[in-house]
Amino acid sequence: MAEPFDAFRYAHAHHDQVAWLSQNTNHLVPPEIVREAVDEAVRRRLYEGYPLASGDPELLELARADLGLGANLPFLTGGGTESLYMITRALLASGDEVLASDPSYLIIHRFVELTGATVRCLDVYRPPWRLTAERIQEAIGPKTRMLLLIDPLNPVGSGYPRDEVRAIAEIAHDAKLLLLNDVTYRDFSDGHALAAEFAPEETITVWSVSKNCGLAGLRLGGFLASPELTKRIARYNTNDLGINILAQVAAKAALRTKPSWIGKVVRQTRENGHRVEEIVRGVDGATTPAAPSRANMTIVDIAPTGVAPEAVQEELLLRHGVFVRAGNYLSPTHGRRFFRVSFSNAPSDIERFGRAFPVVMESLAARAPAASP
Amino acid sequence: MAEPFDAFRYAHAHHDQVAWLSQNTNHLVPPEIVREAVDEAVRRRLYEGYPLASGDPELLELARADLGLGANLPFLTGGGTESLYMITRALLASGDEVLASDPSYLIIHRFVELTGATVRCLDVYRPPWRLTAERIQEAIGPKTRMLLLIDPLNPVGSGYPRDEVRAIAEIAHDAKLLLLNDVTYRDFSDGHALAAEFAPEETITVWSVSKNCGLAGLRLGGFLASPELTKRIARYNTNDLGINILAQVAAKAALRTKPSWIGKVVRQTRENGHRVEEIVRGVDGATTPAAPSRANMTIVDIAPTGVAPEAVQEELLLRHGVFVRAGNYLSPTHGRRFFRVSFSNAPSDIERFGRAFPVVMESLAARAPAASP
Repeated sequence: MAEPFDAFRYAHAHHDQVAWLSQNTNHLVPPEIVREAVDEAVRRRLYEGYPLASGDPELLELARADLGLGANLPFLTGGGTESLYMITRALLASGDEVLASDPSYLIIHRFVELTGATVRCLDVYRPPWRLTAERIQEAIGPKTRMLLLIDPLNPVGSGYPRDEVRAIAEIAHDAKLLLLNDVTYRDFSDGHALAAEFAPEETITVWSVSKNCGLAGLRLGGFLASPELTKRIARYNTNDLGINILAQVAAKAALRTKPSWIGKVVRQTRENGHRVEEIVRGVDGATTPAAPSRANMTIVDIAPTGVAPEAVQEELLLRHGVFVRAGNYLSPTHGRRFFRVSFSNAPSDIERFGRAFPVVMESLAARAPAASP
Repeated sequence: MAEPFDAFRYAHAHHDQVAWLSQNTNHLVPPEIVREAVDEAVRRRLYEGYPLASGDPELLELARADLGLGANLPFLTGGGTESLYMITRALLASGDEVLASDPSYLIIHRFVELTGATVRCLDVYRPPWRLTAERIQEAIGPKTRMLLLIDPLNPVGSGYPRDEVRAIAEIAHDAKLLLLNDVTYRDFSDGHALAAEFAPEETITVWSVSKNCGLAGLRLGGFLASPELTKRIARYNTNDLGINILAQVAAKAALRTKPSWIGKVVRQTRENGHRVEEIVRGVDGATTPAAPSRANMTIVDIAPTGVAPEAVQEELLLRHGVFVRAGNYLSPTHGRRFFRVSFSNAPSDIERFGRAFPVVMESLAARAPAASP
């Protein structure tokens, strides 16, 4: 029997020939910043010893300043993912309910379920393509223990206006709920507001250098919360021996220089986003319903074409070396309607998508069974 | 009020001036191996993207071959530590008991306690300085669920003869107990035997490239177990997005070349160990009771001198730039008797210890209250 096609294995095996539009990664940060920092650390053989367990003091200060949330230092983890893992393990228990959205970043939902808690998803596959304070208020029940506010929202690319963040934070405060605010993509969003500004006791802010600093492969992130919550979460630290030292030196260099390049990265990302919208408009039945993006990704709805997103993912990758992500990884309910494309990439990668997407859709539509209603 | 002295913070702030004899790290692997691999990965900007979640296929093959345990591939984690974290979370529950030793690698004990299980420590601060099958057999009770076999044993430096490993594995098999076999230091031990050879269904082997390959700061390790146990443990994966890509390329390069340098590393480590024994013999009341070491560390007992190990740690570090580890981190019962010194270092580091230790002991003994009985 043939193995099912493994897009990730294929893409990694052809790494340098692929346009990586699949994982919201950022390929626009000046590479010499990372290279110089890592080179120096490797020459000093810092990799031989353990890092300081609590994290490099300068890195902690830089991350605190970057978030701008006051006196508390962040807690470092192996990517934002490990913060989410620790937070769910520490703060949730069987019977608890977490309010979240669909589509969503489903890894968090899985972590919630490991604790015996359940996730209640509110459907946001319609305008305004995100949660609202009103819908959250209606949905809160006796078992609700935590709200999940991903802002901007992966995979949709939508974001929360400041007043909506405030209203959601006030709900969390009044109802004594934990507010998990994942802000991985916040640098791409104009006028982004942190929920901790409005509900400092209830909010756990999860951040990462994966997307803003283009360091996804180094796995460094963390969380910031009140001292009381931090203590409860830190007890479940996954790694008492600290975070990869090369990740720390690269993150330091990136955060130190970020003001000098982040504007250019965001501008190019936005231009690329508009170009993706334009490319999609050129294909009958395909739309970017949640555009313009407030992050570095958007969803491309192809339901009217009858073509399966998995087929688009496979065909784009195998025949054109363009890697996008089928929606079945991103939404239990709507995953068969869309794929996600991310675009913090060189414009030439976007143009590869631009050339390949119409060709792929034409070829697949000819083979598609029938358009879905 | 003065802050208590933080040895780690001080040592990291003076990183390049310190002789790191404190964390069993290995500073003897040829640095060009890591440098070339990391340089190439950084130049290819691999850090921008996520690694393949299951790990680099070549690295998995190299790790499997290195362990030599047959067809199953290891599961990669952020250091051996995260394997231990996942294993305890997945397989233990409130009321379970884990049999372990004192002294021990106490991070594991803490992970056990996070699950509500308890650790029962057998005192091994006496010959043969490790557990025996006989003592384990006697200690097993109705709640015993797991045996912890750290071989060689950090911090003591003792190791298990093949027949003893077999006998312990047979106990685990007969009593249907899980056998957690932490083999981080196995390359330093002549004739080392893996428990999985004798109890493949019950054993979870935890390995790491931190010590054998000198990559502690990169946080890469993993576990190997039966497919059934692996599936149960993998459900609690701390990081669905994979392990730091620079750690993976460095580990690949190190494992690929290991046969060409490991013999030399182990020989130098052993010579250094003998030199440490000699240095300690020169100080009245100080001994290396568990020597010769089968790992790259030993305990130095100073109880008869009345000097506190914490004072030795501080004085060696502050006045001589030599960092050793006080026993209170390593043994609840005997931590005030000893410190640990590790020695996979350049001989010049060992000589710095050799010059400093007698001076420090003389100075502290003059101030010590009275020798303990």
